[in-house]
Amino acid sequence: MVNAGAMSGSGNLMDFLDEPFPDVGTYEDFHTIDWLREKSRDTDRHRKITSKSKESIWEFIKSLLDAWSGWVVMLLIGLLAGTLAGVIDLAVDWMTDLKEGVCLSAFWYSHEQCCWTSNETTFEDRDKCPLWQKWSELLVNQSEGASAYILNYLMYILWALLFAFLAVSLVRVFAPYACGSGIPEIKTILSGFIIRGYLGKWTLLIKTVTLVLVVSSGLSLGKEGPLVHVACCCGNFFSSLFSKYSKNEGKRREVLSAAAAAGVSVAFGAPIGGVLFSLEEVSYYFPLKTLWRSFFAALVAAFTLRSINPFGNSRLVLFYVEYHTPWRRKTTKLGKYPVLEVIVVTAITAIIAYPNPYTRRSTSELISELFNDCGALESSQLCDYINDPNMTRPVDDIPDRPAGVGVYTAMWQLALALIFKIVITIFTFGMKIPSGLFIPSMAVGAMAGRMVGIGVEQLAYHHHDWIVFRNWCRPGADCVTPGLYAMVGAAACLGGVTRMTVSLVVIMFELTGGLEYIVPLMAAAVTSKWVADAFGKEGIYEAHIHLNGYPFLDVKDEFTHRTLATDVMRPRRGEPPLSVLTQDSMTVEDVETLIKETDYNGFPVVVSRDSERLIGFAQRRELILAIKNARQRQEGIVSNSIMYFTEEPPELPANSPHPLKLRRVLNLSPFTVTDHTPMETVVDIFRKLGLRQCLVTRSGRLLGIITKKDVLRHMAQMANQDPESIMFN
Amino acid sequence: MVNAGAMSGSGNLMDFLDEPFPDVGTYEDFHTIDWLREKSRDTDRHRKITSKSKESIWEFIKSLLDAWSGWVVMLLIGLLAGTLAGVIDLAVDWMTDLKEGVCLSAFWYSHEQCCWTSNETTFEDRDKCPLWQKWSELLVNQSEGASAYILNYLMYILWALLFAFLAVSLVRVFAPYACGSGIPEIKTILSGFIIRGYLGKWTLLIKTVTLVLVVSSGLSLGKEGPLVHVACCCGNFFSSLFSKYSKNEGKRREVLSAAAAAGVSVAFGAPIGGVLFSLEEVSYYFPLKTLWRSFFAALVAAFTLRSINPFGNSRLVLFYVEYHTPWRRKTTKLGKYPVLEVIVVTAITAIIAYPNPYTRRSTSELISELFNDCGALESSQLCDYINDPNMTRPVDDIPDRPAGVGVYTAMWQLALALIFKIVITIFTFGMKIPSGLFIPSMAVGAMAGRMVGIGVEQLAYHHHDWIVFRNWCRPGADCVTPGLYAMVGAAACLGGVTRMTVSLVVIMFELTGGLEYIVPLMAAAVTSKWVADAFGKEGIYEAHIHLNGYPFLDVKDEFTHRTLATDVMRPRRGEPPLSVLTQDSMTVEDVETLIKETDYNGFPVVVSRDSERLIGFAQRRELILAIKNARQRQEGIVSNSIMYFTEEPPELPANSPHPLKLRRVLNLSPFTVTDHTPMETVVDIFRKLGLRQCLVTRSGRLLGIITKKDVLRHMAQMANQDPESIMFN
Repeated sequence: MVNAGAMSGSGNLMDFLDEPFPDVGTYEDFHTIDWLREKSRDTDRHRKITSKSKESIWEFIKSLLDAWSGWVVMLLIGLLAGTLAGVIDLAVDWMTDLKEGVCLSAFWYSHEQCCWTSNETTFEDRDKCPLWQKWSELLVNQSEGASAYILNYLMYILWALLFAFLAVSLVRVFAPYACGSGIPEIKTILSGFIIRGYLGKWTLLIKTVTLVLVVSSGLSLGKEGPLVHVACCCGNFFSSLFSKYSKNEGKRREVLSAAAAAGVSVAFGAPIGGVLFSLEEVSYYFPLKTLWRSFFAALVAAFTLRSINPFGNSRLVLFYVEYHTPWRRKTTKLGKYPVLEVIVVTAITAIIAYPNPYTRRSTSELISELFNDCGALESSQLCDYINDPNMTRPVDDIPDRPAGVGVYTAMWQLALALIFKIVITIFTFGMKIPSGLFIPSMAVGAMAGRMVGIGVEQLAYHHHDWIVFRNWCRPGADCVTPGLYAMVGAAACLGGVTRMTVSLVVIMFELTGGLEYIVPLMAAAVTSKWVADAFGKEGIYEAHIHLNGYPFLDVKDEFTHRTLATDVMRPRRGEPPLSVLTQDSMTVEDVETLIKETDYNGFPVVVSRDSERLIGFAQRRELILAIKNARQRQEGIVSNSIMYFTEEPPELPANSPHPLKLRRVLNLSPFTVTDHTPMETVVDIFRKLGLRQCLVTRSGRLLGIITKKDVLRHMAQMANQDPESIMFN
Repeated sequence: MVNAGAMSGSGNLMDFLDEPFPDVGTYEDFHTIDWLREKSRDTDRHRKITSKSKESIWEFIKSLLDAWSGWVVMLLIGLLAGTLAGVIDLAVDWMTDLKEGVCLSAFWYSHEQCCWTSNETTFEDRDKCPLWQKWSELLVNQSEGASAYILNYLMYILWALLFAFLAVSLVRVFAPYACGSGIPEIKTILSGFIIRGYLGKWTLLIKTVTLVLVVSSGLSLGKEGPLVHVACCCGNFFSSLFSKYSKNEGKRREVLSAAAAAGVSVAFGAPIGGVLFSLEEVSYYFPLKTLWRSFFAALVAAFTLRSINPFGNSRLVLFYVEYHTPWRRKTTKLGKYPVLEVIVVTAITAIIAYPNPYTRRSTSELISELFNDCGALESSQLCDYINDPNMTRPVDDIPDRPAGVGVYTAMWQLALALIFKIVITIFTFGMKIPSGLFIPSMAVGAMAGRMVGIGVEQLAYHHHDWIVFRNWCRPGADCVTPGLYAMVGAAACLGGVTRMTVSLVVIMFELTGGLEYIVPLMAAAVTSKWVADAFGKEGIYEAHIHLNGYPFLDVKDEFTHRTLATDVMRPRRGEPPLSVLTQDSMTVEDVETLIKETDYNGFPVVVSRDSERLIGFAQRRELILAIKNARQRQEGIVSNSIMYFTEEPPELPANSPHPLKLRRVLNLSPFTVTDHTPMETVVDIFRKLGLRQCLVTRSGRLLGIITKKDVLRHMAQMANQDPESIMFN
């Protein structure tokens, strides 16, 4: 109660020193926090530490520790998030390879690790080192032929089903919150909503384990969205170790914002992109201090990951890539049987994916190959061009050439893979397993982009004289790079799905390490955002938040309607009057009845029902606790005791019971606006100050109340009436 | 008045359709804008366009143009800022070389351009091509010897003095606002302050021209801070072309934020760093929409610059580098004679700088050389190492080696140059010419860093067995890179001066193009910030703003004191009561007297002096205009007419003069807080909502008023009382 008392601005020292009753200052599950109040509480805490620090050296050291605890938390988050991401990478490598075969020297080695020490000199030979045995070789001692193929095929499907079954069962039994990508929920939590257990230790453990399982099973999903969730769980865990963060929901959210940045950082190896993603997409309250700390956490995480798994990444895609899950299919019949659903989708995925080389391998490898340009030594099918034997130019400067048979085969396979990916990705999301959308969207974009790129390249080769090509395509010179088309396609597809802009471009450029591609990437991001916005303003996160009905007040929506506070406030015309408390004339029983009959989060306190002049606001939760506490501990408090919120007790008849002083639970600085305030100003105030509710007055008289839910409902109503009005601004 | 009327929330349609009186809705010079009001006005404008767009195709096209005008403005700013930066670069190149000699084939060629077409093959020979004549060669036909040296020395000084004199005269006569770097003022303007002419066309023109002159004169200053000012002038110019921006001070500031990003982008060739700089250092109100548009403007500007001046930049430092000016010497005697001051400082700079090769050349070239590592073909004195003839390693992989004579000479010269730079930079700033601090600070840091780097390198060479070196310095291997030390030193010095953090690291990494140096750079930025913060929290921009007494409410300061609104509000105890207007009992003369006797920006309007219930707030400026207007145009308005703010006129005695209705100038939604509201909440509200003033009430009764200046004064008082309290948080 100390903090809440200080927050309410009470100058009464005795009130301030009173024993706090338990649980005051916390929030219930699925409630919204009050940012201003959290901030005040933190300032009080900080003030107390500062004044104490002058008393003794020990207190001074404690105050220093407190000041540095923010950095310590960031360091710990970075270390743990990086470690987990590294472990996940290694485990996924091993388990993905396990679907194809096993290492004889040590079964926990992945294919690459198994053949690392092999004596073969070329990559081609090393890939087939004798220590690595395919299942057909191990079981029936055949490496080629139809029966070997079928056996490998079956083992592939079997392992995939096993992994998927394990994953969905673990999620179902131990941590239902571990499913999905988690980004919409994290966005909601960061905006000030309480979802207990969503970032808990069980969620952390189960999500980490099942993430390995689902990625290894070969389902069409990414691990990057879930990694952000995992990083936020780490952030929540470490902030619970420091009272500065564990006891203040506002401060905790600063840590979580930084943890989200660290999550993106390890997901993509893009620390700057991670910070910008946290700023642009995820965070709600992002002070500059958080910007700097996020950057620190993101860097620590990226370097921890790199030191754990330095070989896991191709040079082009520094780490792998992907993200987040869309709306849930609440209506499908299959959705009622989550385990069966996962098994069926996994079986279909495995059966269709195996025969096509572009879907059999991991999606991040696929993207990496699509981004790469064809160097001279490239053995990929996509680089099967017909070389001109009379070529005089150096080997590493490849001019344009006619496509060979391999390229045409690759085009067909890519086209099939593209269709398959699009369809299966739609079905994969919303299943009750951890899943991200980033890698699959990028893969779809990259496949389409690469195909367009090869098409344009061959067009340019065969038609050098066309006007579009004539100016910059001399015969024999390299004027079209299909890899760049793939990269731009990936960025465009991702931009359309998530509506990220700056952070998308920065992530792509950190992934590929090339500042020079920034213009095509930016053009792609802008175009895809504009095109997608024409279909609907919401990105996938917002759509998801909307679908789940979370009370999220988006900073990006502009409210431009001409309604006033008086149009939105409760009570409306015809409704019963607002439930208020009077400052010194209601009995304990009156208040208890009021609390029982209504479910409001709090009640305005007025001088009297006649004057209706507002003096403060009392939270329901704190009222209940205060009355319960007084009935138990204070003598003489009975049902018809008068409750008063003033400094001095009211004058009462001689034989009346002892009155109950409740000034401590009174917030003396409630937020008020006049009834003529435009709603856009009210929306702005709710957004910027993070209010839960706001009282409406006219000429000092209380008229009504507007809560965050009223604001959200009103915004939704207005948007439905006139959906175009917010489109251009 | 249409907009202000809508803002005040009046529902009366007749009021709304009234003719606006001229000048209403603008602000006076050196006044603060009201962000909420600007936002409301923009929403009104937008709403009007949207509703009109349904009327005809022409209106629809106009609404589309309006929606896209933001992007058009960004494009124009990027193009102009990039062009100006390119022209400045080219002109500086030419004029800097003019101090040494002239090109015979075309006098407007710089040294490099002059010798570009020369047939000499090596860089060394090309540098001495016959078309380029030093002054001594041209005038007395001698290229070597003492007399030639003295003549060149004199010409160098002469040109420097001429350029400096021209610059200071131009600034003095045509555009006094063109002096300094401009960043503190831009910060203040962006926070909502009006400084007329600061971003005007004259300032743009004169600042561009004089910037070329002062940089060419060789003074120890940078051009990057001024470039931000130039870009903001471009932004202001283009926003004046579109009524959406020219008529709304809030919207105009969105454009200026983006222009600042474009300025940093061309100054450093760092578009992402520019956006982050604008976000972290300069901007006050930075919605996500602005983030994205800033990025666009920054990219366009960078690419325009690159296409104008593609050769002007070394590969390491993509474009050159520098920044901003510190406090002004208000007290020096010399300061009273700005022209003389500039001449004296220029003369001293030129005389001392010429003999030392590290101060004679341009500072950005110096930094570039200091950053570079010694490749095999490097001809710099700093790379004069003794090579081991028995070396078997490839040429481009230079192991550590003992330093040669050149390195030792360079060390002495660098030490002298370092001392000179530090001293002269302190004297150069605050002179009445455009000047930035970025390049000089980086140069100081880079020189110190390179010297330390060479020292450590030689220590490691001679003492391979020391514990610190033993683990990673094998003999013959390269374990210390002095160039990296220089880069870290530059970042640290810059970080200490400006207290930039994330944007500094991003700019440095965009400058040098190396993600791998991000850890040492970050460590340097953090350390220098912590060390500098121990001496005082303010960066150079904040110190400057403070010194000039601008009303700037810094987002970064945390206010943690336990004062309440009642402690800060006016009137204080013992002061005369607050000047208020009553809603329907004061005469025109009463109000005119009140306006004459006070200088408040506005007056609260109450029901009556007895009840003191607040109904609204009237701006001084609008009251004056409304009364003047009514006296001129409305019949029957005399000095003892009753003024009323209610909907209906009050009941008056039969023979009283015609009353004056002033509801239109009444803001019906003034911002109020209770007297018990903690000041930290009040500060937060002022900061986040950009208020000018806030009224203080208790139980619906008006008690007092808090203005932005009261808040700033109170914060300064509190900070002086207890300077440590805001240090750690």
